[in-house]
Amino acid sequence: MSANQELCSLRWNAERQVVEVIDQTLLPHSLQWCELESLASYCHAISAMQVRGAPLIGITAAFGLAGAIARDPSDENLSRASKALLATRPTAVNLGWALAAVAAAVRDIEPGARARVALAKARQLRAEDIANCSRIGEHGLALLRGLKPDGPLNIMTHCNAGWLATIEWGTALAPVYKAHAAGIPVHVWVSETRPRNQGTYLTAWELQRAGVPCTIVTDNACGQLLRSGAVDCVLVGSDRTAANGDVCNKIGTYLKALAAGANGVPFYALLPASTIDWECAGGDDIPIENRAESEVLAVSGADETGQRRELMLAGSGHRAHNPAFDVTPAALVTALVTEYGSVAASSVGLERLRAQISSSSPM
Amino acid sequence: MSANQELCSLRWNAERQVVEVIDQTLLPHSLQWCELESLASYCHAISAMQVRGAPLIGITAAFGLAGAIARDPSDENLSRASKALLATRPTAVNLGWALAAVAAAVRDIEPGARARVALAKARQLRAEDIANCSRIGEHGLALLRGLKPDGPLNIMTHCNAGWLATIEWGTALAPVYKAHAAGIPVHVWVSETRPRNQGTYLTAWELQRAGVPCTIVTDNACGQLLRSGAVDCVLVGSDRTAANGDVCNKIGTYLKALAAGANGVPFYALLPASTIDWECAGGDDIPIENRAESEVLAVSGADETGQRRELMLAGSGHRAHNPAFDVTPAALVTALVTEYGSVAASSVGLERLRAQISSSSPM
Repeated sequence: MSANQELCSLRWNAERQVVEVIDQTLLPHSLQWCELESLASYCHAISAMQVRGAPLIGITAAFGLAGAIARDPSDENLSRASKALLATRPTAVNLGWALAAVAAAVRDIEPGARARVALAKARQLRAEDIANCSRIGEHGLALLRGLKPDGPLNIMTHCNAGWLATIEWGTALAPVYKAHAAGIPVHVWVSETRPRNQGTYLTAWELQRAGVPCTIVTDNACGQLLRSGAVDCVLVGSDRTAANGDVCNKIGTYLKALAAGANGVPFYALLPASTIDWECAGGDDIPIENRAESEVLAVSGADETGQRRELMLAGSGHRAHNPAFDVTPAALVTALVTEYGSVAASSVGLERLRAQISSSSPM
Repeated sequence: MSANQELCSLRWNAERQVVEVIDQTLLPHSLQWCELESLASYCHAISAMQVRGAPLIGITAAFGLAGAIARDPSDENLSRASKALLATRPTAVNLGWALAAVAAAVRDIEPGARARVALAKARQLRAEDIANCSRIGEHGLALLRGLKPDGPLNIMTHCNAGWLATIEWGTALAPVYKAHAAGIPVHVWVSETRPRNQGTYLTAWELQRAGVPCTIVTDNACGQLLRSGAVDCVLVGSDRTAANGDVCNKIGTYLKALAAGANGVPFYALLPASTIDWECAGGDDIPIENRAESEVLAVSGADETGQRRELMLAGSGHRAHNPAFDVTPAALVTALVTEYGSVAASSVGLERLRAQISSSSPM
């Protein structure tokens, strides 16, 4: 576990034989664990975003499928549970990747032995995610060391690609934690990330716990910050990466990439290779999830007693459109950073990465 | 008054000899007028954003100065009241412009006659603002007629540059109202405009009242909308326009301009010529107002009973940075639209406009 944290987003309680996750919809005002047991509870946790972030969604789904297999190891149930979990959210490719990994592990095994193998596979995926994120952090740290700011290193991030989005370390925040641990002075501009405010609710909370200086800004402020020289680099995650290097990530990522590009600020997407969709030729083929308009028209927060409440922002009768992700064209991405290292965000770069993956293990 | 509205943002109650403004901090959940009488009430109305929008700020300040002169027409009081009103907000240049216009009107008049002249000047500025915004609407409508969408004309706007930001018509929304009145099918993408949500609170409310179809989106969603072809043009206002065509407007304008430019979507800034700062060589010379961090860390809205409440978004101990405006470089602005017509956003274009202003009246 990282030196900076005593928590992780998802843990296997071996004693009680149950998965526990932090209910991220209650952060930052309340830190509560919830147990996932039934398939319905797993599906709800993902679709209601108690867990979110492409890597964590994948690991959660893997445990959900393992749990379903433990209750009924038949092929029919394997297929039914996989479908239910896969339908929870459309954009992150890790969801399908993790489900396929568990299914492949048990497919040729007689039903009576499947439960143990499926759980072992889920636990293995979890452990690999931790190791991969740590590697992403090291590779990202090498890039940060190449920047030579006058004062502290000013990093902008979007949404939450920290350990809450994975198991430990995170993707975009992994190099930040590594830099902080290495004694490099860092300061993070945290974009609030409307409509669900993952920056304010999750990233600022994570960074504060780790003692990393950070400042919350509106998404709108990020352009001016990038124009004014207040940002040394932008680090974001990716929910799905196309084979040409296009990055599909939280809505608003594209605008930050445009502003970074227009002002010569490096823009890195950090991601486990499991978020690369090798079958997807370009970002515009990625299905973009549209979420409920209530996420835009209303907002939740804590009242003066610390209790979570919801307020209406809009007047009555208004409509909203709420796409959860956008596509950042590869040309705006300085590099992709995976557990294998940095690679150009291009078809050529990704082909090279694919060859590396098939011939070696992560570095 | 516009065919679409029975309201205006600021009115002179001749019977009671008092200015009444809509308290915009209470919209959309409550429509309340408040009377402005003391200098302190005028200063508070502007700094607390009960009135906002560069043109309306200017007119309000003009009435505030006229009111101060009515109470004490001395040179000392004229100077004191001007300074107090000028200090309320730093970015909009109309504030200083309107105060200077009132001061110039009374400077060479003996104190006993100043009150009547100052009030007449404020009322004249108000009437001119209405006429100028109507002209901006006609010039903007001519541009909209040049766009040939397959279906309804999809217009994106930011913040509120409607009649709530002026007296009637608005600037960016004036062509929308004119188009709607002319039977042209329009649909407006309303960006919520964090942190103060003027899009959700004010623009959507204005458009709904006028029967103009509109959809609220997060600021983050605007990039993807522009990339996906869902927007035919972007119309914004301007709080201060530099002599080289740089546009200083509500924070987040720059990001929309970048995305419009990257996707070949026309981006127009619509503004009365009074927002042009001829002494300002470029946008980076414009002072950017930084507002309270509580605007970012907390949010207000209506609870289930319709009562206005505030919630904390961030956990305790977090800091925010809250610039209220940003600068959009002239190169990203397709044209500036004033009461004199459309002009290139460039030094050459603005020199031409200045010559036109000094030789003619608005068209």
